[in-house]
Amino acid sequence: MTYCLAIATKKGLVFASDTRTNAGVDNINTYRKMRSFAWPDRVLVLLSAGNLATTQAVARRLESHVATEYHDGVTLKNATTVSEAAEYIGRISREIQNYQRSLLAQQSAFDAGATFIFGGQIAGQPPELYLIYPEGNFITYSAEHPFLQIGETKYGKPIFDRIVNSDMTLEDAARAALVSIDSTIRSNLSVGTPIDLLIYEIDQLNITTQLSLRDEHPYLIGLRQQWGDGLRRVFNELPRFDWES
Amino acid sequence: MTYCLAIATKKGLVFASDTRTNAGVDNINTYRKMRSFAWPDRVLVLLSAGNLATTQAVARRLESHVATEYHDGVTLKNATTVSEAAEYIGRISREIQNYQRSLLAQQSAFDAGATFIFGGQIAGQPPELYLIYPEGNFITYSAEHPFLQIGETKYGKPIFDRIVNSDMTLEDAARAALVSIDSTIRSNLSVGTPIDLLIYEIDQLNITTQLSLRDEHPYLIGLRQQWGDGLRRVFNELPRFDWES
Repeated sequence: MTYCLAIATKKGLVFASDTRTNAGVDNINTYRKMRSFAWPDRVLVLLSAGNLATTQAVARRLESHVATEYHDGVTLKNATTVSEAAEYIGRISREIQNYQRSLLAQQSAFDAGATFIFGGQIAGQPPELYLIYPEGNFITYSAEHPFLQIGETKYGKPIFDRIVNSDMTLEDAARAALVSIDSTIRSNLSVGTPIDLLIYEIDQLNITTQLSLRDEHPYLIGLRQQWGDGLRRVFNELPRFDWES
Repeated sequence: MTYCLAIATKKGLVFASDTRTNAGVDNINTYRKMRSFAWPDRVLVLLSAGNLATTQAVARRLESHVATEYHDGVTLKNATTVSEAAEYIGRISREIQNYQRSLLAQQSAFDAGATFIFGGQIAGQPPELYLIYPEGNFITYSAEHPFLQIGETKYGKPIFDRIVNSDMTLEDAARAALVSIDSTIRSNLSVGTPIDLLIYEIDQLNITTQLSLRDEHPYLIGLRQQWGDGLRRVFNELPRFDWES
């Protein structure tokens, strides 16, 4: 499994992902699930969850379409809107999933599915953020809950439901992302560090900040410590039942 | 869906469950998923998740075996150990699931499965606590994580992983249970109030405390408020990134 998320605030976009992949508990690896693309007129970020062969093949296809002169359709580089690029990624993803399924039709337990978070900004347009389903269709976030999650989403959702809103600073959104992923890592073996974090400030058309946080990163150590201590303190101060003296 | 849990501390057992059932989002009801049995020599508590027809049929069967003089095998009332009773419940559960599946063999999407948490104490023995799988087999908790969960377990697990331990008081365990269920209710429509809470103090052979907490219960209101405010306070005090002034 994996856990990726993105938050859309009025100040820009925050993307975060873990880096663990597993094909059974005895086959655990570290792969980046975050890919960023920066050209003078645009910044685009892609997060992926699901079948690793599918997500890697999708990424290779997207990159080769940009690199080759023989592809005359939409690419990440020439799409006129982020949503046009999202539709294009959904189409590629479906093609590749169908191909992979055709290879392995006998193995009914095989799941070629892949889900993506994709967002960014193209010059002259507002930032956009989408979740692309395995079927290739996609949705954006809601104003009430301005975030999207893929993969192992449940452990880290309660903290998002309480804290994330579209008025928060990009740094607060990044902290919320780290807390959400770190809580998931503690509760589920299939999600692990390093945590990749990318901050995009609106209208900069450049990646503002990009970090890869390993277990021994001082910021992650401090955040974990303070969050854990703080939770225990809040828990210890909760109201007593009426029969407690 | 549903969410039920139990915690085993050195002081006794805490059981908690939500009360929402749903057959699709347009068919939501309130049913108790907690059943308690108290006889002079024993207290037993059963929590259920899964197919409501199955869990209700299992409960009826257990109760009828106690009530009738024509059943000459194990019952909840005469089992010599809690684990013997757990094995008996597992057997009943499997029988009923098989029967329900035989009725509806054509409807492949039909899931008759049911999972239980079952625990308590019989005079002269230590308390026991089990999770009974749909297959009828069962496990107990681990010393490191002395809790069991069934149903929609992921949202409320991070707080348990951080806070629950076997040295905590029964009241602290009860508060942790309420926080875990309340977090789940906020994040998932299929889990809802009232929250049923039962505390069993070791060697009392009587239910110590039993509460049903509706949304408007003053204790639940206070707990929610303080937990939410506390989390936001801890979040706001998290360390700044080094580029923040």
